[in-house]
Amino acid sequence: MDYQDQAKEIAELYSALQKKICTTLEEADGGEKFNSHPWEKSSGSGLTNVLQGGNIIEKAGVNFSHVSGPLTDGLKKILGEDAGFYAATGISSIIHAGNPFVPTIHMNVRYFALDNGVEWFGGGIDLTPSYIDTAQARQFHLRLKTICDKYNENFYPGFKEWADNYFYIEHRNETRGVGGIFFDRQKPDEKTDRQQWIGFTSELAEVYGFIYAGLMEANGGRKFTSKNSAWQKLRRGRYVEFNLVYDRGTKFGLESGGNIESILVSMPPEASWEFNQVPELNSQEERTLHLLKKGIDWINYTK
Amino acid sequence: MDYQDQAKEIAELYSALQKKICTTLEEADGGEKFNSHPWEKSSGSGLTNVLQGGNIIEKAGVNFSHVSGPLTDGLKKILGEDAGFYAATGISSIIHAGNPFVPTIHMNVRYFALDNGVEWFGGGIDLTPSYIDTAQARQFHLRLKTICDKYNENFYPGFKEWADNYFYIEHRNETRGVGGIFFDRQKPDEKTDRQQWIGFTSELAEVYGFIYAGLMEANGGRKFTSKNSAWQKLRRGRYVEFNLVYDRGTKFGLESGGNIESILVSMPPEASWEFNQVPELNSQEERTLHLLKKGIDWINYTK
Repeated sequence: MDYQDQAKEIAELYSALQKKICTTLEEADGGEKFNSHPWEKSSGSGLTNVLQGGNIIEKAGVNFSHVSGPLTDGLKKILGEDAGFYAATGISSIIHAGNPFVPTIHMNVRYFALDNGVEWFGGGIDLTPSYIDTAQARQFHLRLKTICDKYNENFYPGFKEWADNYFYIEHRNETRGVGGIFFDRQKPDEKTDRQQWIGFTSELAEVYGFIYAGLMEANGGRKFTSKNSAWQKLRRGRYVEFNLVYDRGTKFGLESGGNIESILVSMPPEASWEFNQVPELNSQEERTLHLLKKGIDWINYTK
Repeated sequence: MDYQDQAKEIAELYSALQKKICTTLEEADGGEKFNSHPWEKSSGSGLTNVLQGGNIIEKAGVNFSHVSGPLTDGLKKILGEDAGFYAATGISSIIHAGNPFVPTIHMNVRYFALDNGVEWFGGGIDLTPSYIDTAQARQFHLRLKTICDKYNENFYPGFKEWADNYFYIEHRNETRGVGGIFFDRQKPDEKTDRQQWIGFTSELAEVYGFIYAGLMEANGGRKFTSKNSAWQKLRRGRYVEFNLVYDRGTKFGLESGGNIESILVSMPPEASWEFNQVPELNSQEERTLHLLKKGIDWINYTK
């Protein structure tokens, strides 16, 4: 198989997984369905699935794309690889719920192949609650660890730390949420071969829908006040700051002239900013702020 | 005078102008007053004045700062200047109004001096209406042109074009609003000397308050619907995109570890994003979108 066939094989798998994720989310929401927006460019094509105004989901985007083209000088520099052509495919998704007690979640899996034989996988899942429920954070990490451990016992500790460092809002000195896993440019090797990488990223994409279905089930019925919603909007403001200032996928998309609506479907439906906002002492809001730190071992977190 | 005295002289002037702007805005709003938040760092000090929840003004920030220090390698590279130390001072301000028919406005004047004798001025004022009123855009540009022309007949045409190019949201292919003027690194010369630059930037800072007082007067009483507010929030989302993705002042502030609340006081109180939002045909919203283009000669705009 050449690099294009390699990417095509995985693109077919990812495309099917996109559909599966959407079906799972639609069933769990029980209200709105996803609308599909296909797009095509000279570099390739994609499908942006968007659900707005569901019972629980306020706005969800599940994007699939499959592109290829010449490796420009800019890309060579960014990637540190020298080759003639590349092909890439991936799924990326973000879900924002209306209820402030249902966290925001993000998932991405991606594959990249060059015509010089180099190929790699990347991806991750991370959770951003407006109110951190430590038992749910523990369960979330446990679920990711279980999948990681099936493939490589080094994955969870390494990728968990990577997520802590990646999903970090430097100028606020806060993590985006309770983290999860993140990995980039992972080349298949003796320990984890190509098929295993395909299996691993596919499992992540699939479990993503189920994790969120569980979180909707657990929290979607919780009562909330306008104060809770105001706090959620402020936290969404931080989400916007992360996505526009730091997120490499978003920045790359904006700079490379990608499909703007698909890239920014990740933005929250509503966000707010307030000068010098400080939560009340010993409030739930303050407790969450204290937990937005790198290096928390959520699986063994007992407080 | 050495570079520090030069900056100090202007800092005193700018500091007094900050106060004047706030008084003008308070009087025009007739509701809330500004709260002053002084800050101090090893590099210098500043005063962040914030008004939230006024009669017309929903959130306004008027920042003053005066800093100095060694010219780091990073700064040398950015500035293209080689010197030992720098001193800088400036005022920057953004005002967001609650009424969707009262535009968002931004003003900045700044002065920079090096210990090798180099000094420069920068600044600008630009207007971002959610609904463009072409007569008000014309009047706004006319007022800026009048001030520019007093100092140098090349200022308005050059700085107007500069604003069109600077306040541009590349990934949306839209200008941020109806523009205004923008200029950076302007060194005093035979045509416009140091005193004239001080006069020009001071006049801009002062007229800023009066311009906005006029816009509040003209539009603050206009009735609006929830549809108008929803559109305003979407337009504020664009403002957020510009500030976090492109604005050099914001980026520099975030990267250099500046006072984060002062830097992000520019953010709108509430913003929203909607996938594939397209305004109705021939609506006021669509008309505004069509006018978010570079190169419109607002002063002679007759449509």
